Amino acid sequence: MQRDYLVHDRRQPEISNVRLAAKTAVFEVQAVDLCFANGEKRTYERLTPSRRPAVMVLPFDGLGNLLMIREYSVGSERYELTLVKGLIDDGETAEQAANRELQEEIGFACEKLTPLRTLYTSPGHMYSPMQVFAAHGLTPSHLQGDEPEPLEMVAVPLADLDALIDHADFGDARVLAALMLWQRTQVSGSLK
Amino acid sequence: MQRDYLVHDRRQPEISNVRLAAKTAVFEVQAVDLCFANGEKRTYERLTPSRRPAVMVLPFDGLGNLLMIREYSVGSERYELTLVKGLIDDGETAEQAANRELQEEIGFACEKLTPLRTLYTSPGHMYSPMQVFAAHGLTPSHLQGDEPEPLEMVAVPLADLDALIDHADFGDARVLAALMLWQRTQVSGSLK
Repeated sequence: MQRDYLVHDRRQPEISNVRLAAKTAVFEVQAVDLCFANGEKRTYERLTPSRRPAVMVLPFDGLGNLLMIREYSVGSERYELTLVKGLIDDGETAEQAANRELQEEIGFACEKLTPLRTLYTSPGHMYSPMQVFAAHGLTPSHLQGDEPEPLEMVAVPLADLDALIDHADFGDARVLAALMLWQRTQVSGSLK
Repeated sequence: MQRDYLVHDRRQPEISNVRLAAKTAVFEVQAVDLCFANGEKRTYERLTPSRRPAVMVLPFDGLGNLLMIREYSVGSERYELTLVKGLIDDGETAEQAANRELQEEIGFACEKLTPLRTLYTSPGHMYSPMQVFAAHGLTPSHLQGDEPEPLEMVAVPLADLDALIDHADFGDARVLAALMLWQRTQVSGSLK
C-alpha cells in the first residue's frame, strides 16, 4: 500500500457532555454533546460503547467443513445462518470465551485459536468490537449455555463456501466479512 | 452449491407481544415476548426493525479509484474510513437515495448504479438492511447535506484495495463485506 489510508490529521470533535438517554434490560442509549473543529455543535445519540468485546469463531472440523449454526434472531424475525459467537465474560480472555462458546453452541472444544480480525459495525451509532478467530483441533466437549432451544449445527463443506458467500440472500455483514477474510488468509497462506 | 444452506424447516418461535421498552430522539427499543417450538419462553429486546432501509455506495471515478469518505463516528469516537451511505427518504427509491447521498457526501452524481447485495448486521438485536450499490459514470454535482463539517473524500486506487482490506486495523464489517463482495464480482466478471 502506497499510503496508510487509516492515518489522518483531522482534529477530533470535543465531547462536552455524555448523558444517559435511556436504559432497558439490554440496551443503553447515550446522548453525546459534540463540538466539531469548525465550531459546529451537535448532539448525537449512540448505544453505550461496549466495555466487554465479543468473540466470533470459525471452527474447522479437519474433515473439510466449516461448522456454522442456525439460530433464531428476533431482529430479523427468522432463523439466521451464522457463526458461533458471544460476549466475553468477566475474567475471561477472548480465547477462553471463544472456546467456551464453541462448547456451548456446537459441543466442541478446540486446541488452537488463530486471530483473524476485530470487526465492528455502524460506528456512527454504536461500538461493539468482535474478535474473530479461526478454530482448529476440535474435540467433543459440551457445556450448557443459556439458549432457549438447542442450536442447529450446519456443516458447510469448504467447497461450498464460495457459493454461500455469493448467495443473493446471504447478507449478515459480520459473517460475510469473517468468511471472506478467512478465505484471503488461505490464498495468501498467512493463516494455515 | 450442493445445497441451499439458507433453506431450513425450523418452525419459527411465536411472538405473543411486542411492546415499547424505550424511545429516544434516535433509538427505539422493543421488548418481544417469544415462545419457541419446544415451549420455552423468552423476552428478547431489539432495536425496532427499520421500515426505511439504508443505502451504501461504492463510487468509481473511472480513473482507477474508489471514492471513500472519512467521517467522524461517535460510537467509536474517531474518524472512520467508510463509504457513502444514508437512509432512504420518504418517497425515494433506493437508487434515488444513493444518487442523492453521493451528491451530498462527495459532490458527484452518477449515471449508473448496480446493486451488489443487501447487508445487515447483528440480526439478533436489530434489523437495519442496507442496499449496497456500485456507482459509475460520475459527474460533479453538489447537494447540501446535514453534515456538521464537510466530509473528507479519500480516493483509494483500486491497486491499493487489497492492502486496505488486509490492514489489521480496518474493521468495519459492512464496509469490508461491501469491498470484498465487489472484488468478487470483478473476478467472476458478473458486474463490470
